[in-house]
Amino acid sequence: MKEYILGIDLGGTNIEGGLVDRKGNVRFKTTKPTDSRKRAKTVLNNILSVAKTVIEKAKANKCKVLAIGMGTPGAVDHATGTIVSGAENIMGWKGVPIVPVLRREFGLPSFVSNDVTLYALGEAMFGAGKGAKEIICLTVGTGIGGGIITGGKIYRGAKDGAGEIGHTTVKLDGKKCKCGSFGCLERYASATAIANMGKQSCKKNGKGLILKLAGGSKDKITAKTVFDAAKKGDLAAKDIVEKTGRYLGAGIANFINLLNPEMVIIGGGVAEAGNILLRVISKSVKTYGLRISTKDVRIVLGRLKTNAGVIGAAALAWQEIKR
Amino acid sequence: MKEYILGIDLGGTNIEGGLVDRKGNVRFKTTKPTDSRKRAKTVLNNILSVAKTVIEKAKANKCKVLAIGMGTPGAVDHATGTIVSGAENIMGWKGVPIVPVLRREFGLPSFVSNDVTLYALGEAMFGAGKGAKEIICLTVGTGIGGGIITGGKIYRGAKDGAGEIGHTTVKLDGKKCKCGSFGCLERYASATAIANMGKQSCKKNGKGLILKLAGGSKDKITAKTVFDAAKKGDLAAKDIVEKTGRYLGAGIANFINLLNPEMVIIGGGVAEAGNILLRVISKSVKTYGLRISTKDVRIVLGRLKTNAGVIGAAALAWQEIKR
Repeated sequence: MKEYILGIDLGGTNIEGGLVDRKGNVRFKTTKPTDSRKRAKTVLNNILSVAKTVIEKAKANKCKVLAIGMGTPGAVDHATGTIVSGAENIMGWKGVPIVPVLRREFGLPSFVSNDVTLYALGEAMFGAGKGAKEIICLTVGTGIGGGIITGGKIYRGAKDGAGEIGHTTVKLDGKKCKCGSFGCLERYASATAIANMGKQSCKKNGKGLILKLAGGSKDKITAKTVFDAAKKGDLAAKDIVEKTGRYLGAGIANFINLLNPEMVIIGGGVAEAGNILLRVISKSVKTYGLRISTKDVRIVLGRLKTNAGVIGAAALAWQEIKR
Repeated sequence: MKEYILGIDLGGTNIEGGLVDRKGNVRFKTTKPTDSRKRAKTVLNNILSVAKTVIEKAKANKCKVLAIGMGTPGAVDHATGTIVSGAENIMGWKGVPIVPVLRREFGLPSFVSNDVTLYALGEAMFGAGKGAKEIICLTVGTGIGGGIITGGKIYRGAKDGAGEIGHTTVKLDGKKCKCGSFGCLERYASATAIANMGKQSCKKNGKGLILKLAGGSKDKITAKTVFDAAKKGDLAAKDIVEKTGRYLGAGIANFINLLNPEMVIIGGGVAEAGNILLRVISKSVKTYGLRISTKDVRIVLGRLKTNAGVIGAAALAWQEIKR
């Protein structure tokens, strides 16, 4: 009987579950809306329902499920398996004893961790980081998150709060961030920031390729629109990509100077811009980073795509049950 | 027979050695000039001479030396025990196979690591960090260095280059640093930067307490002069302390956001300013750091003073021989 982990990824919009084998392949993927605006109880029931569906498929197909791994927004108290810092986009999620619930419900060893950290672990075990032991990882999307892998394992810090590169300050007197700080990387280089720069550029430059690619509607400009315009040679768009890459590079250089990793993996929606962004980031890292740490570091794009959440969640359980 | 480690600290000016017991107490401390402007061979001979002197004293007093621990500027390749990244202030120090030399010469297990990292370990084992496992440490002096302790042990990164908080960028468009980057923390908050601000303040404000405390000579203004003037209520000096603390706090907040430590220990000459600086730093950390990581973190001054180098070096060996 082939052995699997049940990987679950709790997102603000959807919950995904699936069986993940030792090599990171996914089977029987199941998706259900999170209902994140309803009570935490509803969200929890939706998670259990996804888990049940996948486990039933596993039974029907004679697959053995060894354990459950789950990724969640926020932070987890690993002593009790309880969510200690809620997720912005899931109401009332703080305080949910998620590990005990999963364990009781399915009688399986269960492990839950922050989703960005698990993305990092998934890339380390099954994606772009295979073979490396010292990795830092960024997810650049609506926000900017980060995860740290050291000795091949998750670095959590004292209270599961490590990796918050999106809220590191790169400009001390910079823009106010919703976190209360100033000049956070996220304010300059997230998908949101890039889209905003695209919109402003239209205001200033009038009609251009960015606006055209957004179907003429300024409100439809996204980070993707900006990158697409840049790839087609639009100067205003290229300028935004330069700025974004410069900021990301400075933030990554700080991370590198502090942790001296072998490898930096960049994932999330913005990473889909690909080489056009990666080139600027790498240049900026060389400018802002120390040579001892930048000369050998590999900066690459993440490899895990649509199943990244489920794979990362399973990676945790694969690692934990081996101990 | 009581057991000791021989701790050696290689500095730009002096080499210090001494016996360190299990509790971090130092005996038979011996000091010799480094001769850092002569050949690496000379520096090495001076190190061996300090070691021999201490070991002879140990024998004469029936103390058993179990191993040697040594701190060095630069980075060490821990596979070969060789200095891989030289020290700015010691000529030709790169490439020296320091661990094999010590081992051959004295027939004792020998361990060498970067001095700032060892300061962190010393504080963790014998100083302000006793009992904590997740610690970040800064030394604020002529430059700003850093060390990371996780699970009670040194975090080195891929190539022994971790902890370089002095060269993290807090002001993307800021002053050029000698490292080639821009807006490095060290440019704004090191003893050198503080003394420069003191000098500039005299230029602008004419005669004031800072100048008076420097005996009327602008060139004699140091970081200490500025802090002394601030403690006596001088407004220009207090302004410099505010600025310095704000920058240090922002840099530390970045470090905290990435690593979520239990504790931050601040050492080095500038830390001697004491509470007047610590208060500003703590305020700034709250401004720039995320609540999840700042709410429980303890920010304290280092406790190891004159013997910090020797104690940190010995701490490494005490930890290594226990394995």
